[in-house]
Order: sequence, then C-alpha cells, then structure tokens
Amino acid sequence: MSVLMKGADVANAMKEVLINKVEALKEEGTVPCLTIVRVGNRPDDLAYERGAKKRMEMTGITCRVLELPEKITQSEFEEEFRKVNDDPAVHGILLFRPLPKQLDEEPIKAMIHPEKDMDCMSPVNVAKVFAGDETGYAPCTAEAVMEMLDYYDIDPKGKNVTVVGRSMVVGKPLSMMLLKRHATITVCHTRTVNLMEICRGAEILVAAAGKARMITADMVGEGAVVADVGINVDEAGNLCGDVDFDAVEPKASYISPVPRGVGSITTSVLAKHVVRAAERASGK
Amino acid sequence: MSVLMKGADVANAMKEVLINKVEALKEEGTVPCLTIVRVGNRPDDLAYERGAKKRMEMTGITCRVLELPEKITQSEFEEEFRKVNDDPAVHGILLFRPLPKQLDEEPIKAMIHPEKDMDCMSPVNVAKVFAGDETGYAPCTAEAVMEMLDYYDIDPKGKNVTVVGRSMVVGKPLSMMLLKRHATITVCHTRTVNLMEICRGAEILVAAAGKARMITADMVGEGAVVADVGINVDEAGNLCGDVDFDAVEPKASYISPVPRGVGSITTSVLAKHVVRAAERASGK
Repeated sequence: MSVLMKGADVANAMKEVLINKVEALKEEGTVPCLTIVRVGNRPDDLAYERGAKKRMEMTGITCRVLELPEKITQSEFEEEFRKVNDDPAVHGILLFRPLPKQLDEEPIKAMIHPEKDMDCMSPVNVAKVFAGDETGYAPCTAEAVMEMLDYYDIDPKGKNVTVVGRSMVVGKPLSMMLLKRHATITVCHTRTVNLMEICRGAEILVAAAGKARMITADMVGEGAVVADVGINVDEAGNLCGDVDFDAVEPKASYISPVPRGVGSITTSVLAKHVVRAAERASGK
Repeated sequence: MSVLMKGADVANAMKEVLINKVEALKEEGTVPCLTIVRVGNRPDDLAYERGAKKRMEMTGITCRVLELPEKITQSEFEEEFRKVNDDPAVHGILLFRPLPKQLDEEPIKAMIHPEKDMDCMSPVNVAKVFAGDETGYAPCTAEAVMEMLDYYDIDPKGKNVTVVGRSMVVGKPLSMMLLKRHATITVCHTRTVNLMEICRGAEILVAAAGKARMITADMVGEGAVVADVGINVDEAGNLCGDVDFDAVEPKASYISPVPRGVGSITTSVLAKHVVRAAERASGK
C-alpha cells in the first residue's frame, strides 16, 4: 500500500500558514497584491487564472487581472506592463506565457523587477535558482514538488533522485532545488538511452516529461517515491499524468495522482511568493 | 592503453582558429581587448594572470591589467570598475574572485555588462548557461571541459555522464552544458551516499570536487572517459588532480592529466570569449 500524496492536503497546510501571515501584514497596513497579466483568452490561462484568483481570495491576497488584447503591439504591451511593474501597490506579477508570437518576451524578462517576479522570468531569479540561493522566486510548479516532499516528510538529502524532463519550468529548476537539499540528481530526457534502468534505480522519481503515462511499472523501483508533474490528455480525452498510475501505485511507497496532485499546489506556492514579496516590500 | 587528453593539444587547435579571427577583426579596424581586474596580489591570481596575458599575446588580443589596492573601498572599486565597464575599447572583462572581504560582489555582478562578462559573473549569463542558451558566456573552466571532449571527438549525446562536484564555477554549469548536448547527467557531491557505484556506471566521468585523488580505480568503469578538473596540492607538496591518475589510467579509454590537462585550456576559452565579444561589438 502506497501513500497517496494529495495536493489538497499540502495546499491546506500551506493555507493555514499563509492566512496568518496575510493577517499580520494587514494589521501593519500592507495588503498583499498579485497582478496577473494575461494577453488574449487562452483556455489554459483562463483555467489557471480562476484557480489562482480563488486561492488568493482564500488567503486574503488581493488579485487583480490585467487583460490585454491578443493583437497588442510590443510597445503597447511594454507600456502596460511597465505600469504594473512600477505600481508600488502591486507586490507580485504573474505573466502568462507563451506570449502571442508578435510579442518578444526578452525585454519583459529584463524589465520585470526581480522582487515582483513570482514565477521566475527574470534572469536574476533564474540565476538564483541555479545557484541554490533561496532569496529569489523559483518557478511555482518546481517548488510545488518540494512543498509536497516536505509535507510528507520525504527528505531528499543523500537520496538518488531522478528527474525525467529538462524544461526551464520544472526539470532543471527542480533538479537544482533538489541538489541544494543535497540529493544526488540525475536528469533524463528524450535522448536518454537506458531510461528504464536509470529510473528504476531512483529512490525518488519525478516525472516531468509531458508524455502521457510514459512511466510504466517496470521503470519504478520497489518502494520508490513517485511525484508526477505531467498534465496530459490521453487518447480517450481524460486528464492523466506522466505516470501510469494504476500500474505503478502498487510498487511505490508514496505517489502523487493526476489530477489532484502537484498541480493543486502551484497556486499555493504562488500565494506564498506574493506574501513573501509583500513582507519584503514592507521591510520584513 | 588510454588516450591522454592533453590540454596543450586542445589549446593549440583553438589558437589557430583564434589567430585567424583576430586578424580578420584587425583588418576591419577592431583590436580585441581584454581587461583583467585584480584587487591585491594573491599568488593564484598572479599566476593565472601571467598565463592569460601570454595566451592573449599569442593570439593577438590586447590584454590590459587594472591592478587595485587590496584595501580599496567599495565606492572606489565600483568607480574604477565602472570606467572599464563603460570603456568602448574594452571588449571583455575578467575580475579575479573572491574579492577581499570588505568588497561586496553583488553590485558588480549587477553592473558588469553581460556582453563584456567573460567568466559568467552576470546573472544574465548565469541564466543563459542554465537555460542552455549559448549566446552568453559560460565559466571558462566548465567550457574548457567541453572543448576537450569536442577536440577528442567524444560526443556526450545519450551518454551517462557523472559530474562529481556542484560548484557554480564547474559542476553546475558543466552539467547544464552537457545536458544541452543531450547527455544524461548525474551530479554527485559530498552528501552522495553511493558515490562509488554511481561513478562506476558513468561513461564519461568528470571530477570537479577539489579533493586530491579522491577518484580511485574502483570508482571508474572499464573504458570510461575521465576528465579531471581538480587542481590540488597533495601532502608531499605536488600538484595533483581529483583523480588518482596512475591507478585509474589503465581502466580509462581517455583521461586528462593534472597538470597539463583541463587547466591548460581555460585561458584559450577566455581568448575565445574575448574574440566573440569583439566580433559582436563590431557587428559581426
């Protein structure tokens, strides 16, 4: 029998802590505020936005949305972004990416104040995650995995941890966060030759490849911790992770489901970042 | 019999290419120029400076040295640094680190123009190395290992590569560079539990831990490629690497010595960076 790592349990524990911090901030006159910047109306963005707004509301954080037209020009976009960036009432910014193709992300990465950059766009935050400097803001999804491991008292120190996937949103930053916590990390990807063997040797296996049910039972060692970061839609139209859950579950000691796993923690990490940004802005 | 990977052979091959590029630049009126910024007179810095000056001279690059007193204040240091940073004749800057303890490196990291930052101080370059974006400048020592592998036609693609050491100078950036080249990477360190077993499974083993002769023969798989980045002084006062060379050499297919291995390539990488910076400054 494996332990099911439920995102909601992690998120609820985080919520308690955050509510207290937000109250303390408000007593001192600071209302933590997130601004979501969305260009166009992509369904994925809208779904995440609904979840984020609900989560901010739940914790007492003000959440504004700056909605911009899909066909906005670079200079108009930069002008709008700059206003939010320079607004002292805004503590954190989340910009949905990718941007429409007429927009260049690079000047925005350079422009966003690192202390308002809640999801690791700014090179200053990217460099900090790489260096293991925890004063920055890591990508929310990568950090959600760390929150999950912490909640279930799974210490990566000295463990062999295999991360499947090398994106800048999950695989790479998560590897660096695990390394900071003294895990021995292995990063696998599409060009990895002996993937089965490597995965099977992992004490903690993180699937972040974005390929439906690619982690099969024969790729998982007996008693491994399995965290699934994938969010895919299978051929039958069902939401599923990168892990073949039903087959892998009996072998794992801990396993996260999809949906209701890691993905349910990301907005809590976002809220945590906004609270931290507000604390810092208020001199805490 | 293993192939000895000699730094001088790699450096010589690089020199030919660089000399041609420098000549082409000079014909168009651009004289590539490096400024080394040194605070105090640390013997390590002076030794590296001599090697760097010689290498720049050899390739036709102008090399200036800004020598600053060890007890310089932060504001004086920043003023001097800013002059070099803003001098259009200077294409590249190398600042020796660590700085004396009264000086704070952070404002300098933020100040240095990324396009003049030859050894990956700026967060912009750090973030690029992390992301696998090759338009930046990686740390010279990490890149020296890549130059060595390339020279000996060792393609890391799909290989199991183990890097022992997780510094921001070698271990981490090199891991990202190998990942970009499609290696499956494992990063080990002092907290790694089963180091011997993990190292033995590596097809390419990079020792960058800074511990004299810690990689022993039983840690190396038959036919492995072994690159030694360590520079240590043993108890008898001799220079040695992280690899127990005499014991490991018979098992390796390729192995780099210390001295005269990876360390002999770093100033060539520095020269390559200066040439690239000069090319870009001149609009190439």
